[in-house]
Amino acid sequence: MGRHTLEYPKTGDNTVRRHNERASYALETIHRLINSSQIVNVAFTNPESPFPVVLPMIGQMGSFDRPSADIGDPLDLYIHGYVSARMFNVTRTAEKKEEGQTEEEKKGLPVTISASHVDALILATSGFNHSYNYRSVVLFGYATLVEDEEEKKYALELITNGLVPERWQKTRQPPTKAEMTSTSVLKVRITSGSAKIRDGGVLDDKHDLQNEEAQNSVWTGVLPIYSTVGEPIPTSYNKVEVPSNVSDFVKDYNAENKEYALTAAKK
Amino acid sequence: MGRHTLEYPKTGDNTVRRHNERASYALETIHRLINSSQIVNVAFTNPESPFPVVLPMIGQMGSFDRPSADIGDPLDLYIHGYVSARMFNVTRTAEKKEEGQTEEEKKGLPVTISASHVDALILATSGFNHSYNYRSVVLFGYATLVEDEEEKKYALELITNGLVPERWQKTRQPPTKAEMTSTSVLKVRITSGSAKIRDGGVLDDKHDLQNEEAQNSVWTGVLPIYSTVGEPIPTSYNKVEVPSNVSDFVKDYNAENKEYALTAAKK
Repeated sequence: MGRHTLEYPKTGDNTVRRHNERASYALETIHRLINSSQIVNVAFTNPESPFPVVLPMIGQMGSFDRPSADIGDPLDLYIHGYVSARMFNVTRTAEKKEEGQTEEEKKGLPVTISASHVDALILATSGFNHSYNYRSVVLFGYATLVEDEEEKKYALELITNGLVPERWQKTRQPPTKAEMTSTSVLKVRITSGSAKIRDGGVLDDKHDLQNEEAQNSVWTGVLPIYSTVGEPIPTSYNKVEVPSNVSDFVKDYNAENKEYALTAAKK
Repeated sequence: MGRHTLEYPKTGDNTVRRHNERASYALETIHRLINSSQIVNVAFTNPESPFPVVLPMIGQMGSFDRPSADIGDPLDLYIHGYVSARMFNVTRTAEKKEEGQTEEEKKGLPVTISASHVDALILATSGFNHSYNYRSVVLFGYATLVEDEEEKKYALELITNGLVPERWQKTRQPPTKAEMTSTSVLKVRITSGSAKIRDGGVLDDKHDLQNEEAQNSVWTGVLPIYSTVGEPIPTSYNKVEVPSNVSDFVKDYNAENKEYALTAAKK
């Protein structure tokens, strides 16, 4: 429809250097990958240790200010999970813009968000040409604690519906006061990002293709890999039929994941 | 057999603070989780940016000095993947122990390794009690480039057989000189680590269990999730039957992953 495809600007952080033909900077590609990742890794520097902190969290892209925004529009990342004491303090301080803070600190906690899907094992003639079909994504941005009650509700609905569509509306409502105050949500203002995608089949070297002994003894091919959701297992006290949003989710999830892996393998 | 279960010492880096009943420090648990992760995330600090670098790589635990070591013994992590220019320089410098380096720098590049499996979505009465069954793992250590030819071969065999058992022996042998020189392997000397595992079913609050209206309208239960390998897809030029190590791998992988998710859901 003549719409522009937005891309993240290339910086020292996000530029893909090796196999850059596999890189994508398109917001839509990157945001979809984040939204389809059940876990995102949140990494940040720890001033008290040489090792960065890396925490598994749950995240979805969204815009509280413009909830109707498209997946390919500039969006924030809302994440939920264990907010460590240090993370909590840094992001709170950033919100409060205390005196003596540097400009950098005022923006929030610098975080690197990453996620990957493995779509196939690629078994080549030589061990050195083995590979994966994969989709990996990385985002860079500044995390702050969401303190506005309405924005927090928006984010929790977004994140819950990211697990199973419409799930938020179908749970006990409204949230209790205790639930709202005991739950922390972080908002990451994205500065850049990139995706890297490998699809297709085996890429063998010419000398291996011409090596009769090798071709007569080594099986070469692709083992597609996809995530599967099994039959829903109700609690012992559940009184409700599996609702259509759950059964549709299971069906769609399984079909989409399998089809993606098989299509990617044959590209 | 009276053998001790080795545990990583608790430090400021690896101690699990929230839900510490889910934590494990056992080397065996942690090493098995790493070995069953098709991708590990390698994070390290970037002195030129506020954002840590995070790269997806392939890794396996092993011991070149004591190849017969058990999975629960102290082991190194060998990783393969794109070694960025900075990583390469830092790890090379560390190997060479140049003058003017700090003690810290001599140990290698401090890296945080992480990986996670999602085993189920836990759908509770309240959105706030939703959860995952998951297994996540984190390791801390110092990475150096493997320069010894024999150790590099050991590591590449270990990593290739981590994808599919016996695969290294069943590919074209021996590696060419060009393959060996163009491939980088890093060895991470582990200093500490921990795992965090959630299994079981829905944990609802008492007030939600007693809320008749909620119990009459909200479906509660577990959606198990597991990774599946599809039918092997041979290359157009493949001349070999699917070998038993590949077909056994597909069968075992699918059975083990599904069984783990279903058993964990019912704990």
